[in-house]
Order: sequence, then structure tokens, then C-alpha cells
Amino acid sequence: MNISFETPAEHACNLIIFGAKGDLARRKLIPALYKLEKIGFIHPDTCILGVGRAEWDTLKYVKVIRSALEIFMREESIDENLWNRFSRRFEFCNLDINHTERFVLLINKLKRLDLLTINYLAMPPHTFDNICKGLSSIGLNKELNRVVIEKPLGIDLDSARVINANVSKYFSETQIYRIDHYLGKEAVLNLLVLRFANSLCFSNWNNSTIDHIQITVAEEVGIEGRWGYFDKIGQMRDMIQSHLLQILTIVAMSPPSCLSSDCIRDEKVKILRALRMVDPYRIHEITVRGQYVAGFIGGKPVPGYLEEKGANQNSTTETFVSIRVNIDSWRWFGVPFYLRTGKRLFKQYSEIVIYFKKPVLNLFSDLCSCLPNNKLIIRLQPNEGIDMQILSKVPGLGNKNRLKPVNMNLYFNKIFSKEYVSDAYERLLLEVMRGIQVLFVHYDEVEGSWKWVDSIVKAWEEQSSNSILNVYQAGTWGPSESTAMMLKDNRSWNEYISY
Amino acid sequence: MNISFETPAEHACNLIIFGAKGDLARRKLIPALYKLEKIGFIHPDTCILGVGRAEWDTLKYVKVIRSALEIFMREESIDENLWNRFSRRFEFCNLDINHTERFVLLINKLKRLDLLTINYLAMPPHTFDNICKGLSSIGLNKELNRVVIEKPLGIDLDSARVINANVSKYFSETQIYRIDHYLGKEAVLNLLVLRFANSLCFSNWNNSTIDHIQITVAEEVGIEGRWGYFDKIGQMRDMIQSHLLQILTIVAMSPPSCLSSDCIRDEKVKILRALRMVDPYRIHEITVRGQYVAGFIGGKPVPGYLEEKGANQNSTTETFVSIRVNIDSWRWFGVPFYLRTGKRLFKQYSEIVIYFKKPVLNLFSDLCSCLPNNKLIIRLQPNEGIDMQILSKVPGLGNKNRLKPVNMNLYFNKIFSKEYVSDAYERLLLEVMRGIQVLFVHYDEVEGSWKWVDSIVKAWEEQSSNSILNVYQAGTWGPSESTAMMLKDNRSWNEYISY
Repeated sequence: MNISFETPAEHACNLIIFGAKGDLARRKLIPALYKLEKIGFIHPDTCILGVGRAEWDTLKYVKVIRSALEIFMREESIDENLWNRFSRRFEFCNLDINHTERFVLLINKLKRLDLLTINYLAMPPHTFDNICKGLSSIGLNKELNRVVIEKPLGIDLDSARVINANVSKYFSETQIYRIDHYLGKEAVLNLLVLRFANSLCFSNWNNSTIDHIQITVAEEVGIEGRWGYFDKIGQMRDMIQSHLLQILTIVAMSPPSCLSSDCIRDEKVKILRALRMVDPYRIHEITVRGQYVAGFIGGKPVPGYLEEKGANQNSTTETFVSIRVNIDSWRWFGVPFYLRTGKRLFKQYSEIVIYFKKPVLNLFSDLCSCLPNNKLIIRLQPNEGIDMQILSKVPGLGNKNRLKPVNMNLYFNKIFSKEYVSDAYERLLLEVMRGIQVLFVHYDEVEGSWKWVDSIVKAWEEQSSNSILNVYQAGTWGPSESTAMMLKDNRSWNEYISY
Repeated sequence: MNISFETPAEHACNLIIFGAKGDLARRKLIPALYKLEKIGFIHPDTCILGVGRAEWDTLKYVKVIRSALEIFMREESIDENLWNRFSRRFEFCNLDINHTERFVLLINKLKRLDLLTINYLAMPPHTFDNICKGLSSIGLNKELNRVVIEKPLGIDLDSARVINANVSKYFSETQIYRIDHYLGKEAVLNLLVLRFANSLCFSNWNNSTIDHIQITVAEEVGIEGRWGYFDKIGQMRDMIQSHLLQILTIVAMSPPSCLSSDCIRDEKVKILRALRMVDPYRIHEITVRGQYVAGFIGGKPVPGYLEEKGANQNSTTETFVSIRVNIDSWRWFGVPFYLRTGKRLFKQYSEIVIYFKKPVLNLFSDLCSCLPNNKLIIRLQPNEGIDMQILSKVPGLGNKNRLKPVNMNLYFNKIFSKEYVSDAYERLLLEVMRGIQVLFVHYDEVEGSWKWVDSIVKAWEEQSSNSILNVYQAGTWGPSESTAMMLKDNRSWNEYISY
């Protein structure tokens, strides 16, 4: 079945949320469900069962949900009619997942056993084994039922395999929905339309017209109390392995023959398998690791990574990575992809920039010694949109800069100012309810991306690159070595422009 | 030598304007010269000699010039210091051009005979023979001297040949500057930059990516007192032969190996020679002739063509043409160019629209039964700029129109709001003074365009298509047959959007 753009869920379901009390459930899932309710996209007979170790009854749970909405849905107030309908869907079940035999309690709480069940494991991965075993013991892993899991799904290939094995003992791949919330973003979906519904993009998407591609995912936030967790992983495994490689595969994939889950995910896997393994002895040339020191963001002082709460002063974990990626395929041979992501950077900002090749002949050499590349800039956030940078003549007879790069602009929030932009979790929850896996990560993708990421992390360790850790001031675009890496290739990062 | 973008004239000259009292001189040339003076682009030693049959002395002529500036340079007031410098350049010579022996008077009026001379014939073409003979008699046709002439340069190939013969008896092709003022427009110059300094345009400029191209030059004005003149010619010979074919050649030409006059004009001539001659028996299928009847423009009533002052009630002259043009070249085989021009249309508006091919495969067929073409819209006037129309996803989960064409916009007046946009005549006068012919029409172009235009006019006459004259209301986009012509090809004219 194809990716959906607007159809509501056709079938009612039992949605069981493990970790009902947790952050993910309260911050993301509950507000997303409320919004889906609001647009009438949840089937009237769908029930939602929260599961946790809290000593709550359903009444108490409904109060928690109300309060979650009030806190995490800042921009809108709660409609009481809607709330009445919404709140009646909820039940709560107190359950210690370590006791398989108690899972039968779930059955008692489900009003209708004939509905398909979606098991949302909003819990850490070490719990998956027990939960899946429990679900299996009461038959909730049966065909058509689904299980939703979310990163972190391991910290390397081995641990990812273990996690997957624990789940796939009880659920088949077609039942498993692995969330990477970047895949639910409007901008990423729009990328599919841009690439495959526009001949202009389509016919220029290969190494005969494209020079190189840059993907930047810059975070303004630091560690946010997760120091202990993050320090074991670092930016490479936290961000590149997941979000950046997901964006890369969607940018680089060949056109699928249709938009079904299998077709699209097959093409993405092909890209991951074609990622060129790095030569460990040249690892320094194509990667830059950075760690932030104290600086200023938006004029306010922020501490360095080693000054964050709970920090180990000897940590060499990277909070910034830039890396040159080569894809060994017919389409992309000779076209490097430059990825860059970091914490405490200048601005919360994500973009994809396609640099087209320079004109082969410079007819305007007396006006412009080197013609610039045409660029297609796809802004993912904020101010989602598309810019096309072309070279234009400056009007008039008497000016100095006679040729100048100018941008054709498209801002989605201006064009579609009246349209409601859905949150990633709304879309992803809807797709789970509809049973469409396009926007979820196939295990082959997990495997492919970890293999490649592991090879880099291993090279860093073996080449003692951990000692080569460049510092950067919080509030900048990362260490100067990141700029230098581009310069070696006669290129530079796309300059950030405030929109 | 290459096209200039900003260099002032290096050498002083004597600029002789024949027809000093005329409309062209007062409306266009004098204000353009003043503006060139203002930016310091006229050589300090350059003199301007007005020639005419008026009983003026230089003092009187300078008064006429002052008054011309005051009337025709509405937006700016005259700077008195500048005026002092400017006015001192002028001389006037009373001369009846029918008396060759009197041309010696010109010699007396020229302060410096060592300068190169530019002879600007702002007169009707039947005078060219006498003027050139006179100039030759006093040696002003010598090498390096130049002659500037302007349309109408004939009403068909034969008369164009006669006019050319009269001039080329005395001046060689490298001395003759034929003005088509469209070639001096910023937007047309920018088209050269767009096409040849941007790989994105460059690599998509052929029949493998382009479906078809539309060129519209819509006039709001009617006949403006020129009924008698216009009625003998019609829109085909008045507008298509000149401006529209000039735009077409610049859009369609292959990249020249450099930007010299010869290289560029050679490529343009190649296009004109490749225009497919029409099959006279199918002339109705590929051309539409129209004549306006009374209507409304901007809410005000305007008369029909036959109700204009001096009209012959039986006239079948066309004031509107639309036509499908084929270019028999490797690059353009199978890509029709649709030209459309008319008087008393809805809006003064000129644009070039490149329709790229539709995607070969529609992956989004359940959202959009037929994917639209990507379009590159080059607005020549007003609001010069470039738009790129692409298909985008409408954000959100619950909307009906899930895919929608949206425009990336570029407005030159917004981007370059501080830059001075020069008038076509400023640029063209400067180029004549610099001795660069790129922006002037080579005789081979005149010959090529008339050959093709004549074949169509002849077919109209022979197939009694003159009787097939479709009427259209003033203030519309022309007769409905023009729309029907496109529909037959499963296409439609680009919808005008008010900017």
C-alpha cells in the first residue's frame, strides 16, 4: 500500500502504550493523538490503553493526560467537547512487565478483543524482550497486530542486532514499526514530491549535473540532562546513524517504481549498502570530531560540554561531526555528500543543499573570474522552503558587481499559511494505525547504517582519533577544522542566511 | 570584442542625429544621452550634432533639447550643473538631405574632424539612400565611422533588401548598427546570463527536457494615431518579424563559443535559418489572426480597430497573431515555440515560459491524475523577474488538494531595488559609441526573419486566410481561436497572474 497523505485510519484498533507515564508518551504521543482526534482521523471505536507501574486507575490516568495536554500543547486550548470524546477512549493498566503471567491483565482491560492491536513500546530497549514475550503469551503478537519501537535501538551493530532479535522473536518485520521522527516531518515528505513529481529535479539528479550535496542538522540545545546517556554514544551514533543517514537516503535514492513501503525502503537500503567504507588510515581527512566549550547562544552564556551537569572531565565524546560520504553507485560516483551535525551550534537549523556543477565554459570571464555553482537549498527547519540560487546580471550600466548570485525563494509558511502543519508524531501514529510502513525504518536500514557507522567509530578508536578532538565555541558552526575539510576539496559550507 | 556591461565609451566621437526634431530623437535619444552623461559614460570630447530642416540655430536647438528632457524624463528633475556640461555638446545644422552638395555644411559644424563619427538616422527608411550618399560625399562613411538605423526596415524581404542596399552601398556591415530596442532591455540581456552562466539552465535547454516554449508580447495600447501606417503592415510584420523573433533566437540559440558580436549573431542566424517553413495548406492550423473590436481596458471603454481615427472599414489587417513555430535543429526537434502578440490586450505584459517535460512516470497518480509541467517563467515586463513553478505537497493531514503547483519567485526590483535600471536606448547608444555590435541586428538576421515571415503572409493571402480574421474584444487575451490552437496540441497559454 502507498504512503498516505490524508486518509484517516479505516479500522478501529486497540492502542497499547507501554511507558504511559514517560516523557515520550506525555510530550509527544498524547498531544499527537489529541490532534488526530480533532481532525477526525481516529476511528470512533479505537481505544487507548496506557500501561505502567504507576498506582493509577483510569480516572487518575485521564487526569494525567489532561495535564499533559495542558503543558505540552502550548499553542492551543483544549476543546471540552473534543476532550469528552477523547478522554473516553482511555484505560489504564498497572503492570510490571517483568512478570509475563500478569500480561493477562491487559486482556481484561481491552473492551474489544476483535480489534487489531498496536503495541507502542515507549520504553528503553532493554525492556523490549520482556514486553514482547508478555504480549506473545496473551496472543497480542498475532498477525496484523503491530509493535512500535523507537531509537535508541542500540549503540552499534551488535547491540542493534540483539534488540532486533528480541522483538523479531515475536513479531515479523511487517509488524515492526521503527520510528525515526525525521521521517514524519512535512519537509522530508515534501522531498519525495520534489524529487519524483518534478521533472526538473528528476532529470538533474545524478553525477552528470550535481557537483556535491551538503546536509546540515544543527542543534542549538546542549545535553539537556542526558549527559551520562549521551557521553556513551556521541553525535555520530546519536544523529548521523539515524536522522542524517535517513535524510541522505531519501536525497540519494533512485526513483522507486511505486510509492509502496517495500519499493521505497528497498531503494533506501541500496544507498546504505553503497556507502563507501572509509579507509581507516585516511579517517582524519574525511571526518572532523568536535566538542563544545563555553560560548554564547542568542547572546546568552552557555557552559561547555565538560561543564554540563554530571560531566566526566576526561570525556572525549564528540558533540559535533562533519564527514565526507561517498556513495559507490552509478548515479553518485564522484559526488561527495558532506554531512554536518552538532550540539550548541549557532542556530537550530537543518538544510539540504544541492550544488550543481559549474558551467563547463565561462563566457563571462571578464565579469566573473569563476562562475559559482547553482544551488538548490531545501530548508527543513525552521522556515521550511526551497530556494534556487542562480547567477544574475545586476541591472544598470554603472555598477561594479556585474554578476551576482540571487535566490528564487519559496516559503511554505507563506504559501500555505492557512494550512495546518502536522507534527511528525501525528503523521507517524496515523500511519501505524493505517498499517503503512513507508515512513518507518526497515531492519535492513538499521543494519546498513550501523555497519557503516561502526566502521568509522572503529577507525577513530584504532587511529586514536579520539585524541584528535577539536574544540569549538558554543554558538558557532563547529570547529574550524570542519571548514578546513571542505577547503581541501575546494568547497565550503553553504553560508547560513537568517530568514 | 565582447558585449559590455558597464565600461564607458573609451573614445570621443561626433554623434550626428538626422531627424533632430523628430519623435524618436526627442522622446528617446535625448533623455538617454542625458542619463549617460549623468553616469559619466559619454567621453568628455564627444559632440552631438542635430540635423534637420527646422530653421533653428544651436541656441534654439538647445532649448528644444531642454524642453524634451523636461517632458520625457518625468521621473527626474534636471541637474543644472549636469545640464551645463551636457548642453555644451550640442550643435545644430539646418540641412535638406535631398541636396548632396550641402552635406559639406556638416563638416563646418564639426569641431573636430579627427573623431570617429556616428550617424544616427532617426528618419524613415526612404531617406537613407540620400543621407548615406551625402555622408559618403564628405567622407563620413569612412572605416570606423558608424551608421545607426531602426525599424521599420521594410515591410517584406524585397523592401528590406532595397533599404539595406541603399545603406550598404556606402557602409559595410561592420559599420551598420540596426536597432531592435528589445535587445537593449535589461531582461533580454539577463537572459544571456541566465542561459549561459547557470549550469541548471544550460544542461536543461533542449528537446530531452523541454516540452515547449511560449513567448507572449502583449500590448495594452492600440494604434496611437498610426492607423494608416500600421494597417499596411499588421502585427505579424510589425511585431513578430522583429521583437518576437529576436527573443526567440536568444532563447533558442546554441551557446556561442564566446560573447563576441560575430559568435552571438552567427548562432542567432542559425536559428532563423532553421525556422520551419509553413505548409500553406495547413496555415490555419498553426496561425491565428485577430482584430480587436471595442472593449474595456482597466475599466475604461476603448474603440475597436475599425473605429480608430482614420480607419478603413474594410480593413482585414491583423492586430493579433498567435503562431506555432518549429525549429528544425538537433536541439529543438519536436519542441514547438508558441508566439503570441497583440494590441489592446488585457495587460502590457511580456514573458517567456519554458515548459519542461512532465515526469515520465506518475508515482502520485492517486493524488494527482496528471502531474503538471515544471515551468520557468521569465518575465520581461513589467516586474521583471524569474519564477520557477514546481509541484509541492500541501502540508497537513486533512486537506483536499494534496499536491499543488507553487512558485519560487525572483523579482529584480526587490533584489536590486537600489540599482539603476537603464533604458534600452541608453545601453544601445553606449554600445554604438563603444563600437560593439552584439545587441544590434545583423543583416543576415533581417533576411532570415523576413524570408520566414513572408512565407506566412503569402500563405495567408493565397489561402484567403485574410478572410479568416477572428475578432477579439479589446481587454482580453485575444480571440478564442488562439486558445483553441493550443488545445489542439493538448496545451494552454500560461495563465497571467497579476504581480
